[in-house]
Amino acid sequence: MNYSLMAGGKRLRPILVLAASEAFGGSHAAALPVALAIEMVHTYSLVHDDLPAMDNDDYRRGKLTNHKVYGEAMAILAGDALLTQAFYSVALAHKVHGAPAERVLAITEELAAYAGARGMVGGQAADMLGEQGITSLEELTFIHRHKTSDLMVFSLRAGGHIAGATPEQLNALTAFGDALGLAFQIQDDILDIIGDESKLGKPVKSDEKQMKVTYPYFIGMEASENMVRSLTSQAKQALEEAKLPNAERLLQLADYLMKRDH
Amino acid sequence: MNYSLMAGGKRLRPILVLAASEAFGGSHAAALPVALAIEMVHTYSLVHDDLPAMDNDDYRRGKLTNHKVYGEAMAILAGDALLTQAFYSVALAHKVHGAPAERVLAITEELAAYAGARGMVGGQAADMLGEQGITSLEELTFIHRHKTSDLMVFSLRAGGHIAGATPEQLNALTAFGDALGLAFQIQDDILDIIGDESKLGKPVKSDEKQMKVTYPYFIGMEASENMVRSLTSQAKQALEEAKLPNAERLLQLADYLMKRDH
Repeated sequence: MNYSLMAGGKRLRPILVLAASEAFGGSHAAALPVALAIEMVHTYSLVHDDLPAMDNDDYRRGKLTNHKVYGEAMAILAGDALLTQAFYSVALAHKVHGAPAERVLAITEELAAYAGARGMVGGQAADMLGEQGITSLEELTFIHRHKTSDLMVFSLRAGGHIAGATPEQLNALTAFGDALGLAFQIQDDILDIIGDESKLGKPVKSDEKQMKVTYPYFIGMEASENMVRSLTSQAKQALEEAKLPNAERLLQLADYLMKRDH
Repeated sequence: MNYSLMAGGKRLRPILVLAASEAFGGSHAAALPVALAIEMVHTYSLVHDDLPAMDNDDYRRGKLTNHKVYGEAMAILAGDALLTQAFYSVALAHKVHGAPAERVLAITEELAAYAGARGMVGGQAADMLGEQGITSLEELTFIHRHKTSDLMVFSLRAGGHIAGATPEQLNALTAFGDALGLAFQIQDDILDIIGDESKLGKPVKSDEKQMKVTYPYFIGMEASENMVRSLTSQAKQALEEAKLPNAERLLQLADYLMKRDH
């Protein structure tokens, strides 16, 4: 559990939790266990995705994948335990940091919804079932939305919940996260083609080698780059219209993600 | 998810939730989503345990195991999604059935604790790491306690929480579940040696073939049978001393489990 959780990465999802909580003047203390939870869920999904029966990857973030170090059985169990521990961590926001039980339970419910069969795992299952047989951009978008956007939307909403956001404000965070998540995944597809291996910590052109379809495959590189830009603008606009008390950091993040090289 | 969840089984853990709730006059409606949640967690653990990298079992409850039907990738994901959905189901006890958020969040936290790295998954990991190398009864008891007792203790406490049990009453349920869970697992070891394959839905003597150590291996068949009886008495006594309003069904269950042949 520790090996994969501490292997680095951008920590994007926890940052989204903290930045969304900040947007409403929420305390970092209560948001932190939720931020940790989402990183645990993200990490478990990577550990399981890397397994031989799934993507069969040997490297992740420049290090050997979990099952290459500890064996398949322990990698499966480490993933299971990280997912379980995530819900424990969420509960601490109430138990240790005094966030209202009602709000923390709403976060639990949304974590289960966004990370489960109708969310992230559903996206992963569609990806597995569709391998080499994805025939439309709609199908690819479904996979991207659930594999990637859902956890980003959850992170933003969870930060909002902790800080007491209203349903309308939560909707704005959802719109921001949906657009940002798709932009993020298209950027991933682009970086897999033109990125720098040493910055990415994994081999480039892996999608091509695994015959995975991508946005550039369907619509070309230039249209993909334009789409990252327009989705980012759309995300920022949704947030600006909602006039959150302190959205500066979230807006900066959107720009940062568009320009990232890893 | 559906294939394994609907494959049958004793439904012991959900029955423990409902019986424990009943012991305090709790409503079945609010306890049901929690009962369903624990069966999802139990089912996910079986789906993952049966994988080739773990116990590599082809049959479970007289049917092909999940990965034999859907492949390894889908079995891993089905297990992941069942575990995630369990937490969603718990949240429904509040959202749909109006159980207080505070109590439902306590159930969430305990589910994560008893099913996670320090609970069920910890027991499974110890079992995997110790395979063929378990040298003491203490080590075997550690594995049994976490692989089996922990979810039974959780089920009983969750039923108590839903119905508003006091901390002292929850302690009595814990003592009952600890003793009952160990008795249950020793009985499993016994049935693997002297049971009827058609009733068990799985081949007997699988422990012996896989060179797994068991209670009968360490202390012999007669002492194992005596231990099942004395642990069952101990469990019942813990419950009787706590003088719960309506413990009849729980006491009947203890007797039933001691006499079961599958």
